[in-house]
Amino acid sequence: MKTAVYPGSFDPITMGHMDIISRSSKFFEKVIVAIGHNHNKADGMFPVQKRLDMIKSATKNMDNVEVYIYDGLLIDFAEKVGANIIIKGVRNSKDFEYEQNMALINNSLKEGVETFLLVADPKYCFISSSMIRELMYFKKDVTEYVPNEIMHMLNT
Amino acid sequence: MKTAVYPGSFDPITMGHMDIISRSSKFFEKVIVAIGHNHNKADGMFPVQKRLDMIKSATKNMDNVEVYIYDGLLIDFAEKVGANIIIKGVRNSKDFEYEQNMALINNSLKEGVETFLLVADPKYCFISSSMIRELMYFKKDVTEYVPNEIMHMLNT
Amino acid sequence: MKTAVYPGSFDPITMGHMDIISRSSKFFEKVIVAIGHNHNKADGMFPVQKRLDMIKSATKNMDNVEVYIYDGLLIDFAEKVGANIIIKGVRNSKDFEYEQNMALINNSLKEGVETFLLVADPKYCFISSSMIRELMYFKKDVTEYVPNEIMHMLNT
Amino acid sequence: MKTAVYPGSFDPITMGHMDIISRSSKFFEKVIVAIGHNHNKADGMFPVQKRLDMIKSATKNMDNVEVYIYDGLLIDFAEKVGANIIIKGVRNSKDFEYEQNMALINNSLKEGVETFLLVADPKYCFISSSMIRELMYFKKDVTEYVPNEIMHMLNT
Amino acid sequence: MKTAVYPGSFDPITMGHMDIISRSSKFFEKVIVAIGHNHNKADGMFPVQKRLDMIKSATKNMDNVEVYIYDGLLIDFAEKVGANIIIKGVRNSKDFEYEQNMALINNSLKEGVETFLLVADPKYCFISSSMIRELMYFKKDVTEYVPNEIMHMLNT
Amino acid sequence: MKTAVYPGSFDPITMGHMDIISRSSKFFEKVIVAIGHNHNKADGMFPVQKRLDMIKSATKNMDNVEVYIYDGLLIDFAEKVGANIIIKGVRNSKDFEYEQNMALINNSLKEGVETFLLVADPKYCFISSSMIRELMYFKKDVTEYVPNEIMHMLNT
Repeated sequence: MKTAVYPGSFDPITMGHMDIISRSSKFFEKVIVAIGHNHNKADGMFPVQKRLDMIKSATKNMDNVEVYIYDGLLIDFAEKVGANIIIKGVRNSKDFEYEQNMALINNSLKEGVETFLLVADPKYCFISSSMIRELMYFKKDVTEYVPNEIMHMLNT
Repeated sequence: MKTAVYPGSFDPITMGHMDIISRSSKFFEKVIVAIGHNHNKADGMFPVQKRLDMIKSATKNMDNVEVYIYDGLLIDFAEKVGANIIIKGVRNSKDFEYEQNMALINNSLKEGVETFLLVADPKYCFISSSMIRELMYFKKDVTEYVPNEIMHMLNT
Repeated sequence: MKTAVYPGSFDPITMGHMDIISRSSKFFEKVIVAIGHNHNKADGMFPVQKRLDMIKSATKNMDNVEVYIYDGLLIDFAEKVGANIIIKGVRNSKDFEYEQNMALINNSLKEGVETFLLVADPKYCFISSSMIRELMYFKKDVTEYVPNEIMHMLNT
Repeated sequence: MKTAVYPGSFDPITMGHMDIISRSSKFFEKVIVAIGHNHNKADGMFPVQKRLDMIKSATKNMDNVEVYIYDGLLIDFAEKVGANIIIKGVRNSKDFEYEQNMALINNSLKEGVETFLLVADPKYCFISSSMIRELMYFKKDVTEYVPNEIMHMLNT
Repeated sequence: MKTAVYPGSFDPITMGHMDIISRSSKFFEKVIVAIGHNHNKADGMFPVQKRLDMIKSATKNMDNVEVYIYDGLLIDFAEKVGANIIIKGVRNSKDFEYEQNMALINNSLKEGVETFLLVADPKYCFISSSMIRELMYFKKDVTEYVPNEIMHMLNT
Repeated sequence: MKTAVYPGSFDPITMGHMDIISRSSKFFEKVIVAIGHNHNKADGMFPVQKRLDMIKSATKNMDNVEVYIYDGLLIDFAEKVGANIIIKGVRNSKDFEYEQNMALINNSLKEGVETFLLVADPKYCFISSSMIRELMYFKKDVTEYVPNEIMHMLNT
């Protein structure tokens, strides 16, 4: 089986993201983590290049995982890297309805592109990048919620 | 990529099922349509053997699709046929919460088994086996909702 | 504007049903309350004829409301009485996903039939026929939940 | 039956909107498409006057459809044009819970105003104005998602 | 703070139930686990008396937890034991809409009775009594899903 | 039973908030209404000090209700005031999924902190602070939606 793309902002990458990447990497020949970034818009909390470094560090032991930044529509990026599979994690019905919409749009834009939704591991179901950013804003410990490999990169 | 199992009652198979089978067959080496059947319980509208014949007819042009009947837990059947992927179609948030539950149970019973949820094609989103059975009960035409190949098997 | 059908089991009619009937009757020339009944199946708590009498009593002051029993598909009944509008009340997202499905099925069976969903009045949103039956089973007072006109018919 | 109002931003009008307008126009004497606009806020992607022109072009063959811009509360606009019916399309349970809220607010502000929810046609269920704007931002073809009549107005 | 009732079928009690009981017992003076049982209906998989014994065993170290069987409406049982608080665990939005309904009914039947909903611990969110029964039917190990104290009572 | 915190923006306090405060105050020794405020961000429609005054006026007859402003994480504020219970009202499944998330985060940050969700009274289920602000912007009467005690404070 071919290449799968796992898109997101990853600002920063969380244990929830890591779970989806790790599970996907067992089923696909290659998993491309794709950091969406609009160069016309302000960066997030972490510059996009730093997010890339973080994910590369966190996934360095997964041989078939690659990390890229993309600017534009996901569907165009997927085509460029030869992927016809999109992977997303889903935590609850709100997530589902959002991803259902995205899957239908992407399939409408390019027939043959398939979205596979994975059920988020319950133990990470409340973790999100925005929660991490909020906790960091209030100087809270986020060790439990992000991969160890990026801890030293969070505050520098 | 290995073998995926697509489980259900298929009483009878619908265009919605066909859509999921057809899409899955493009991404997996083998797709096994698995008809769940408890030999201690009454049959559905169609005897389970007939359901098998129907699905075989409907999928006869898809080389990597096989059809089986299983009795017991899906997870045991999956193991027996060497599949570690389960495929399900999801139409709305009610479907999602049900499949979320099933995915977590199956993963708890056997680590490493992954469920991939596919977003149902909107044009089939209201079609279900129980709707077909209801329409047949009232002698309505169901041509639009089931694969052509099984039309002649519905009333015999 | 033409005739609208408001289908249900009405076993028995509740204040929630009355709210939908009353609101609909202000916007349609005729509202037909349609009691679905399969003559091959056992009756509900109240015989279907009694349910008809109850609804007639409860709606006797609404000039443009009529009450019928139908056996078969709603869409066939609607055609027979010349109605191309179906009215349903919706209390929450579970109700909605159910009615969404029914609306799509009915529209697929007969193009041009439109379903209008009305948001249930919050003060009746927890009232259902099955709740009434449960309360009656335990000899509870249900005065608040059913129209006054049918109170004397509940226990006879 | 009287006049119905179909409110929205229509920035720009989509095939999903057209479906609701077209279906409504068969059941109501007059359908008023009402473009909500706060003159104190910045315009959307398309100036409100252009949105009006687009909708007029797209609905020019529907005799009983009129298009207006309104500033203020929908309920006041509805009163001004003598409408006591509000029409909205609903695609999924997230949409439903939003519209349920709006319907209850509007009914609380002015008793007797009724909201009729229509189930969106599944083939348009993933289409939204914000999706169109996103696709246009990335220079994608949107022909499939907007009425033909407005295509030439999108880029001028 | 007074007495809280935690109602259910508990056929059998699961780790999910134990989590709610244990958390509740820290906040209320007394928690009454109330096994609903209609003496006119067939027993579940486990006789109601055995379910009582199971829960008593599982909660024997919680001093302020008591276990009863009740027949009839929960609200009447709550009154009899002097409780005006009902506790329920909620796993997802389907659960929520069900419990929302029950809370409104109970509050309507007896003003002043309050329902407190607790968010289920994600690690138990897929566990239910019906899942346990299904696994037992297929001779699967359920050790992980039920309290240790009842394991020896499951098969005798 | 100890102290419960009821957090929110209360910009301004509504009848929906009052309902939750009033119901909670009957079950907890002390209820602390906690107005979240980030001193680095712009104030809402009403300055935070005025919101405090409003809530104090509206709850002046409830002896065990106190009102505070907090800056930072709710969980830290709760600890400071010695509360291990958080109270939230829930109106529909969207609210629920949001509060489910918050409850899991708070429990993860500080074990032993419990969130009790109360089902909103249906007659207030469509009322929110943002609705009040919108109505005030358009000079509408909001008497029905806010406590009497704050009416004279809304426009000064």
